[in-house]
Amino acid sequence: MPGTGPRGRPAGQLVAEIVLATTDQIDGMADLVARIPADADTPEENLAHLARQFLAAFTQPQVLQLRRLVIANADTFPELGANWYEQGFERVLATLAATFQRLADHGQLQTDEPLPAANHFSGLLLWIPVNKAMFHGSPQHTEAELDHYATAGIRTFLAAYR
Amino acid sequence: MPGTGPRGRPAGQLVAEIVLATTDQIDGMADLVARIPADADTPEENLAHLARQFLAAFTQPQVLQLRRLVIANADTFPELGANWYEQGFERVLATLAATFQRLADHGQLQTDEPLPAANHFSGLLLWIPVNKAMFHGSPQHTEAELDHYATAGIRTFLAAYR
Repeated sequence: MPGTGPRGRPAGQLVAEIVLATTDQIDGMADLVARIPADADTPEENLAHLARQFLAAFTQPQVLQLRRLVIANADTFPELGANWYEQGFERVLATLAATFQRLADHGQLQTDEPLPAANHFSGLLLWIPVNKAMFHGSPQHTEAELDHYATAGIRTFLAAYR
Repeated sequence: MPGTGPRGRPAGQLVAEIVLATTDQIDGMADLVARIPADADTPEENLAHLARQFLAAFTQPQVLQLRRLVIANADTFPELGANWYEQGFERVLATLAATFQRLADHGQLQTDEPLPAANHFSGLLLWIPVNKAMFHGSPQHTEAELDHYATAGIRTFLAAYR
């Protein structure tokens, strides 16, 4: 059921405002994944570095809180959730896919389906720490654990896509 | 804030009852991932079949609804979410890891870290369809799309772990 938020604003409006306020964060993440050079001597190191930054960005406490807020309200306000998914989540994945296409064009990755590759990159890295945070109500990882998720995830990604 | 559910039961109790009621489903998923034979002539086909069943099980509308319910209440009732995570999510992953260890012992997979392999298997398959459902408020996939997620996910998994 729609409720009311602080100062009597409808909860839907409140959620919409919070989602809008994170546009800068999403821009930042899209910039992050667009920035990988395709002509580097060390593509594996660059991707490992991206993996660690990607994990850091998506496991920030306020990003996880926003994620829970949108999910919790998605059946009541499906358009809001859909909008967040398309303008946030999918935009970052599309930018990552464009980066992977660029790397593939330069022979630094092997894929003729860059969007599934971007989906796999994200899922390999984020599935465990994001779920842990979602179900426990707060982030559960240490920095060392994020390092470990990044190392394991990128090893699997490179084994499949290099 | 804790609220009340139908018939005046505290929302926490209601969520706890729903989580308990899904024990059978979790048993079913654990059975599913334990059932892969390690001496088959066609390990790749078996894993592809498991991938498709795994996707079907975790994208059932009622499983996704329960998932949203637990996530939405996780900051108010963190013990409940933690319990669901450990008894549900982690139990299935531990069973899958035991299966991968068995396959590795028989030379059908290459991994000396079966739990990260199980995490990767799950993340490759579930990250996109589960997120889509979470943010849109309902499942968004067709059966053909689940087939496609399974095919793409298992191809990447086998490229890394075979």
